[in-house]
Amino acid sequence: MIVPRVGIGTDIHAFDADRPCWLAGLHWPDEPGLAGHSDADVVAHAACNALLSAADLGDLGSNFGVAEPEWAGASGVTLLTETARRVRAAGFEIGNVAVQVIGVRPRIGTRRAEAQRVLGEAVGAPVSVSGATTDGLGFPGRAEGLVGIATALVYPTPAPSA
Amino acid sequence: MIVPRVGIGTDIHAFDADRPCWLAGLHWPDEPGLAGHSDADVVAHAACNALLSAADLGDLGSNFGVAEPEWAGASGVTLLTETARRVRAAGFEIGNVAVQVIGVRPRIGTRRAEAQRVLGEAVGAPVSVSGATTDGLGFPGRAEGLVGIATALVYPTPAPSA
Amino acid sequence: MIVPRVGIGTDIHAFDADRPCWLAGLHWPDEPGLAGHSDADVVAHAACNALLSAADLGDLGSNFGVAEPEWAGASGVTLLTETARRVRAAGFEIGNVAVQVIGVRPRIGTRRAEAQRVLGEAVGAPVSVSGATTDGLGFPGRAEGLVGIATALVYPTPAPSA
Repeated sequence: MIVPRVGIGTDIHAFDADRPCWLAGLHWPDEPGLAGHSDADVVAHAACNALLSAADLGDLGSNFGVAEPEWAGASGVTLLTETARRVRAAGFEIGNVAVQVIGVRPRIGTRRAEAQRVLGEAVGAPVSVSGATTDGLGFPGRAEGLVGIATALVYPTPAPSA
Repeated sequence: MIVPRVGIGTDIHAFDADRPCWLAGLHWPDEPGLAGHSDADVVAHAACNALLSAADLGDLGSNFGVAEPEWAGASGVTLLTETARRVRAAGFEIGNVAVQVIGVRPRIGTRRAEAQRVLGEAVGAPVSVSGATTDGLGFPGRAEGLVGIATALVYPTPAPSA
Repeated sequence: MIVPRVGIGTDIHAFDADRPCWLAGLHWPDEPGLAGHSDADVVAHAACNALLSAADLGDLGSNFGVAEPEWAGASGVTLLTETARRVRAAGFEIGNVAVQVIGVRPRIGTRRAEAQRVLGEAVGAPVSVSGATTDGLGFPGRAEGLVGIATALVYPTPAPSA
């Protein structure tokens, strides 16, 4: 019996209207950007964290943080592609990833198919993207920032037949 | 090998003491209600979002939002029943759903079995309901609103035997 | 076909600098502690909640709350050990648990291997521990408290062969 593993990961960034907005692997030209190192794509970053969590490979900080300067400024999609590579190198296949973005804007549903295609190609497995608001509550409700929250399922790569 | 899929979903609403309280599919006559379209049942809604996320069917907004006025005012249990129908119509069976409600009241543990029965009948699969507080922190701790957070597991319906 | 079950759980506590810091099953001598009953270990507690949620066994409050005074003051690792025992007694094997701690300190990555060993021994299955910050947003960003968020996968124990 092959037992899959699940993981969970969040990523949170504050809005910074002086930066371009990258979210769910897409550029949103009419939306305020997010602050942070790299592109602050909370959807791609939450997906990375969930995959790393499922495969017991640490988190974004331990994989791509200040100790690994070659990843400074890398896009969320680049980090997600490399994360998926590391998960497979550790002996897992990826079943799926599901990410929800929590906040008032951008409205992810307007570009869901496009986002899922870009992220799914990076992961090499289905990535679903959904959205929710918070009824005005908390920092997401005050439009101070965005939350990405994700789960992922991976399973040990079956040994090759003899 | 049949590989299951996992999903994640949250739902958040503010308290509105002038409305009746519906939570986890139950009416709570002595508790303040929640604001929002429909009944604002954050447990049922989070379960919907997690199922839709697992089955790659979007989210509450894309399925039952302003573009689908026939669902305006529908109860959380009605939306959950229809969500489960859509997940199965898309070719998945539902393994289970797990929801945690975060906030100070109602105390879900006092009616857990009843809630799980109502939600489980809506989904046609086990739904577990649990609760947590936040030690006074954030909007849930200030009793401004409630958070529902859920995960779900679905798997492709096996093809019928020839 | 054996269908696994997934669960989700959070736990949140405020900092209390007058208490010792216990997090992820470890004592952190140079860090401010967390307020609450028992040791307020949000990582261990979130893991408990996720396991109980997956196995449909309620939550920390219903298992170890004020109605069960023999657990008053128990450490997070003790509660996690007993949680895993109850999950197995209910007929499930544990696949894995994944926990993310959200907040500014302690930096979990500095002691990840040690934390995962202690928690994994308590559960009797792999426990991955990861961390994230919130870009200064919300109560975790203001260093008022810590969030633990976890998911878990369990599956029905196969019946013994005849």
